[in-house]
Amino acid sequence: METIRLGVIGLGGRGSSVISGLLLGMKKYRIVSVCDIYPDRVESVCETVKNHTGERPFGTVDYSEILDKDKIDAVLIMTSWESHIEIACRAMRAGIPTGLEVGGAYNIEECFELVKAQRESGTRFMFLENCCYGRYEMMVLNMVRMGLFGEIVHCDGGYQHDLRDEILLGEENRHYRLRNYMGRNCENYPTHELGPIAKILNINNGNRMLYLTSMSSRASGLNDYAKRHPEIQEKFGTCKFSQGDIVTTDIMCADGATISLILDTTLPRPYSRRFTVHGTKGLYCEDSNYIYLDTDFGADSHFNWTPQWNNAEKYLEKYEHPIWKKFMEDGVRGGHGGMDYLVYDAFADYVINGGKSPIDVYDAAAWMAVTPLSAKSIELGSAPVEFPDFTKI
Amino acid sequence: METIRLGVIGLGGRGSSVISGLLLGMKKYRIVSVCDIYPDRVESVCETVKNHTGERPFGTVDYSEILDKDKIDAVLIMTSWESHIEIACRAMRAGIPTGLEVGGAYNIEECFELVKAQRESGTRFMFLENCCYGRYEMMVLNMVRMGLFGEIVHCDGGYQHDLRDEILLGEENRHYRLRNYMGRNCENYPTHELGPIAKILNINNGNRMLYLTSMSSRASGLNDYAKRHPEIQEKFGTCKFSQGDIVTTDIMCADGATISLILDTTLPRPYSRRFTVHGTKGLYCEDSNYIYLDTDFGADSHFNWTPQWNNAEKYLEKYEHPIWKKFMEDGVRGGHGGMDYLVYDAFADYVINGGKSPIDVYDAAAWMAVTPLSAKSIELGSAPVEFPDFTKI
Repeated sequence: METIRLGVIGLGGRGSSVISGLLLGMKKYRIVSVCDIYPDRVESVCETVKNHTGERPFGTVDYSEILDKDKIDAVLIMTSWESHIEIACRAMRAGIPTGLEVGGAYNIEECFELVKAQRESGTRFMFLENCCYGRYEMMVLNMVRMGLFGEIVHCDGGYQHDLRDEILLGEENRHYRLRNYMGRNCENYPTHELGPIAKILNINNGNRMLYLTSMSSRASGLNDYAKRHPEIQEKFGTCKFSQGDIVTTDIMCADGATISLILDTTLPRPYSRRFTVHGTKGLYCEDSNYIYLDTDFGADSHFNWTPQWNNAEKYLEKYEHPIWKKFMEDGVRGGHGGMDYLVYDAFADYVINGGKSPIDVYDAAAWMAVTPLSAKSIELGSAPVEFPDFTKI
Repeated sequence: METIRLGVIGLGGRGSSVISGLLLGMKKYRIVSVCDIYPDRVESVCETVKNHTGERPFGTVDYSEILDKDKIDAVLIMTSWESHIEIACRAMRAGIPTGLEVGGAYNIEECFELVKAQRESGTRFMFLENCCYGRYEMMVLNMVRMGLFGEIVHCDGGYQHDLRDEILLGEENRHYRLRNYMGRNCENYPTHELGPIAKILNINNGNRMLYLTSMSSRASGLNDYAKRHPEIQEKFGTCKFSQGDIVTTDIMCADGATISLILDTTLPRPYSRRFTVHGTKGLYCEDSNYIYLDTDFGADSHFNWTPQWNNAEKYLEKYEHPIWKKFMEDGVRGGHGGMDYLVYDAFADYVINGGKSPIDVYDAAAWMAVTPLSAKSIELGSAPVEFPDFTKI
């Protein structure tokens, strides 16, 4: 197999933009069938694909019609968060190599279902966490593997993205975030930041997340924003949002390393994933993009650090991850600064060549589980809640 | 009273440097008696004062000899953390206006003792948290009071200071940090970051900290550092440190705002107090010293933010706190960028003029209580632990 006959389920913002902005330009993929519950989306994407390739894919509103292993070699699941796991299980049990877009789970049981479906079917599965392929995330991973940061003791991460417009005005795009912010209170989107951290800390590779605590601030951001925007206020004037503006989650790992996550999506701010990796010999901080190594700066830290902001750029020359080195030579393309290309390219290679999944079902289950575990901890007044061991089923 | 006859208890690093670098230059103070358990320190400071003023203060190794209200108008307590509260209680009960240097408490009972001693004696008391007088901390407080950040929903703070040399080599200076790092595991130094946050969140002024959870990473930083430094290794080769390298603490407030603290003192890094204030209309971040206001940048946050790092400087012109405006006109002096001058100046004014304590005994008790509460939470596997209400005794 050199070209993957691809089915795509979920043609909302993510699905349609990945197809038009990325997959249609990748020789490894041929889009042969697409699905969404909204017929207009199906029609629009079928037209886009036809205009680009000359071939109109099969389109349907019923995803079970997509899951035919004689017709497709792999499927991408890019639907709303709620349906991710159910569809992924169906796809794997139908024997179709499955790429699952990111999101948090809704309960622990479905995380176990995901693992079970993969183990019982033996079908290839990859969790499509693009941020594992971020340029600085990969450089830091590379440096960590080389021992430059010493033993890693703590990592921070965050999904810090001002989504007030997307949440409040997303209805026009039939976006699913709104109903989540009205009905849940949890770390609802942990994997962008947790994925790269979990790789660095060898989670599911000799290490394990043991328990977490979560705390949620009150929910003020969306209503305050609505008050200042009459067109939004009209719709949401009396609306109660359950999702706290800031959710902090602390995770204890088996090796004694700790992880702190922050969800921060309904207050004004610039974008950040707060990626921070702290070892006994070094520190990387995304927020001012710097690297502090003992060997470079010593133990006297009380000097003016401002001139060193952004010094991580300088380390790229020496420590760029091999995957990114090659990518730079070939020419960076695709959305989100190249991460999207790399994750879909890795999925294609995995579907074609097999081997170990770059981000496997245990990773997906453990990372997605943060969402229901955080919801439970918040419900219990921030009590610690244990991670199940998804390898034991 | 125009000049305060001052007694100083505790002449270690902090005490002796504040005397020589600050107090001897302040007209509001006359140092008339000094005390430390080490006679050589007493002798040295007596000589310093005499060389500067011509008058040799009374020196003693027994602090009870200092607490004579006919001889001094106020006392500063700058001893090791362990003895702070006991001496402060004795001083207040002796009727001597008391300035207490910072540190965490060792148990909740002594926090109550502190409050009781002040309430029963009615003696003036101020907690000398210099970081409440930091220039950016005060500007942000000023902006928050003006409503520019909207409702404050979350704050971050940290004591992020690479103290590996100070802890491991501090024995020569008879420093007390070492024994703390060998025998405790807690958020051992919370007030530098929590003080300014508590003022912003109106803690003890209509708001209250309800409970916290703390999580501690393993302790690897000091031993790893020792391994690489033979002169230290010789002393600490087989030493077990109990204090985790990173302690994260999340605090829930009565108004639904949350606070995240981080203690980070045994790994390589530049200095930071991680001061972050996040409201419904704005955000301040110390780490790249920026201010993000809805009115300036709107809700679309997915642009390159790097050029805005350090933009907080620009806001000083318009929003500098009145205390700092005056300070700049008069000429900034004293250690730690002027904070030390301002906190000791505020204490002097309070001793001379009375009125409300700028940082009162309830503030001290609540902020110092974070230390024993965090120790308990860590012991209990990060279980939530309630703050007592120090106003109810």
